[in-house]
Amino acid sequence: MAHRFIEACFRRPVDRTPIWLMRQAGRYLPQYRAVREKVSFLQLCKTPDLAAEVTLQPVDVLGVDAAILFSDILVVPEAMGMELILEDQGPQFPQPLKNRSDVDRLHVPDVERELGYVTEAIRRVRKALANRVPLIGFCGAPWTLAAYMIEGRTSRGFEKAKAALMADERLAHALLSKISDALVGYLNAQLAAGAQALQIFDSWGGALGPEDYARFSAPYIARVIQSLHREGQPVIVFGVETGELLAQLAATGADVVGVDWRIPLDEARGRVGPAVALQGNLDPASLFLPLAEQRKRVARVLELADRAGAGHVFNLGHGILPTTPVENAKALVEQVHAHTPAR
Amino acid sequence: MAHRFIEACFRRPVDRTPIWLMRQAGRYLPQYRAVREKVSFLQLCKTPDLAAEVTLQPVDVLGVDAAILFSDILVVPEAMGMELILEDQGPQFPQPLKNRSDVDRLHVPDVERELGYVTEAIRRVRKALANRVPLIGFCGAPWTLAAYMIEGRTSRGFEKAKAALMADERLAHALLSKISDALVGYLNAQLAAGAQALQIFDSWGGALGPEDYARFSAPYIARVIQSLHREGQPVIVFGVETGELLAQLAATGADVVGVDWRIPLDEARGRVGPAVALQGNLDPASLFLPLAEQRKRVARVLELADRAGAGHVFNLGHGILPTTPVENAKALVEQVHAHTPAR
Repeated sequence: MAHRFIEACFRRPVDRTPIWLMRQAGRYLPQYRAVREKVSFLQLCKTPDLAAEVTLQPVDVLGVDAAILFSDILVVPEAMGMELILEDQGPQFPQPLKNRSDVDRLHVPDVERELGYVTEAIRRVRKALANRVPLIGFCGAPWTLAAYMIEGRTSRGFEKAKAALMADERLAHALLSKISDALVGYLNAQLAAGAQALQIFDSWGGALGPEDYARFSAPYIARVIQSLHREGQPVIVFGVETGELLAQLAATGADVVGVDWRIPLDEARGRVGPAVALQGNLDPASLFLPLAEQRKRVARVLELADRAGAGHVFNLGHGILPTTPVENAKALVEQVHAHTPAR
Repeated sequence: MAHRFIEACFRRPVDRTPIWLMRQAGRYLPQYRAVREKVSFLQLCKTPDLAAEVTLQPVDVLGVDAAILFSDILVVPEAMGMELILEDQGPQFPQPLKNRSDVDRLHVPDVERELGYVTEAIRRVRKALANRVPLIGFCGAPWTLAAYMIEGRTSRGFEKAKAALMADERLAHALLSKISDALVGYLNAQLAAGAQALQIFDSWGGALGPEDYARFSAPYIARVIQSLHREGQPVIVFGVETGELLAQLAATGADVVGVDWRIPLDEARGRVGPAVALQGNLDPASLFLPLAEQRKRVARVLELADRAGAGHVFNLGHGILPTTPVENAKALVEQVHAHTPAR
């Protein structure tokens, strides 16, 4: 059975526009909060039964066209040897990378041994889904992970990480290469376990100007994608604040480029060219509008997507916000499913 | 005497490219740190002698072509009635705006009585400068101030503020109008006290998509600019992550549009048109490069500025970072001053 979501990723015709939402397994869902009352965020990531349970929730509650594994991009640096604290005020590495010997001490994880909870969760989700909708696996992009690993915590512009990479380009490439090797093993294990699509999150890609993106991010994403053993699973690359970087994202070898809410989809199409599908890009804050206003915003995104042509997966321009009313999310999914995309 | 900085703002010919740096009076300077050892950030803003002293430091140390008053955009919300805490980990309003009655309680400040420390500092700086270089006054844009006032603290995307404004558009406009009225009085008082140019910082403009920017930010900036009593003082509008918003910024009535490091200046020129000067846009992290590499980056900005034409004020794409080596900042100023812009 051809899944609407997969078909759209490869720019093949679909009956209805497919939709899923970044962070769709999250705090806005009462069912998720009930699980989280019992365990920490990181424990939830590391308990395959529970991770699988929350992964399925939005499929049941909202009727989205894809599931995305509940996990976090920072479990990879943890498996590479860094202590990770995931708290509600944001992730922290208490001992961020400072020098070459810190980088040398990192190791490329043995996925089944050190990240086996992820592949096990994938197997359980696939079984529970029984092919109802496809399952998306994911990872962070090398630059985004490096930025967290150097900065130690979230930041507006990751200036410390940028300064460190700029001051020592050899160190930068040693770190980014090692992370890329870790991601290749990690994503290939996700594919082997049953992931039917992959998304690479370059959440902090927009902190880099275009010339630095071409040095520190895009080539490593391309290297990861080229090293995947795929059999028909599409790859989505998504970043935030990437208006000027979209052409580079499209050139990584991704099938789909995710677009944040800052740039209209028809503009984005002009920058990525015709060879990729687009994913996005409703502003997550739109789900706080009165419903009639929300509907206008959604219709506008669909209209621009039709104008942009060549494949569209509806999504938000960034993760769904924790205080989003569930009714608004449901209304969004219904409206998108009423739309037949222009050919 | 015509100042190089003012001439460039109005797109008139200059002998050398003028330069100043956002946050040029700041922690990277040992002279600044010596003053800050004695007083808090907010005390420094409110003590005209000390504010004037640190305002002058970068003119003496770096030889920049303009001074910018040492202050903070959040002193205006404080004067409107909100408690403000300015600490090193970022500003906070312990009691953020929650509803209509919170907005109604805000008042438009009597500038000489409630923000007189700002106008007094301007008078002292002007006297001390003796027309060596012009003095820039500034404020935050209405949306950026509203975002802080609702969110209560800094945030990646100011989602809470966006959601609040979207959920209640009448409240949004009541708040933004009141802030605009406060800013008109504030900036006119700065001009009367001797400010020779003004910069409006829409630091969080990029959190809004283009359609929301057209509703919640650009019209209020335009209203403020139109209400100024100017006699030859240029207005600069600057925002961060504004690649898709540049045309709107140029249409506010500003003489100069500040550009962050994410978009090359020749691209930016295509979006703003020929009727404004450009300010920017070296990535602040470039000042951590080895000097030879830094020089290449600076040369590249100058080259793109020449290609963009029609007026260029060199600046960073955002504020100078606190750990920047002073030697790198000095080398930057020297290199820019060696450049004669193309006509």
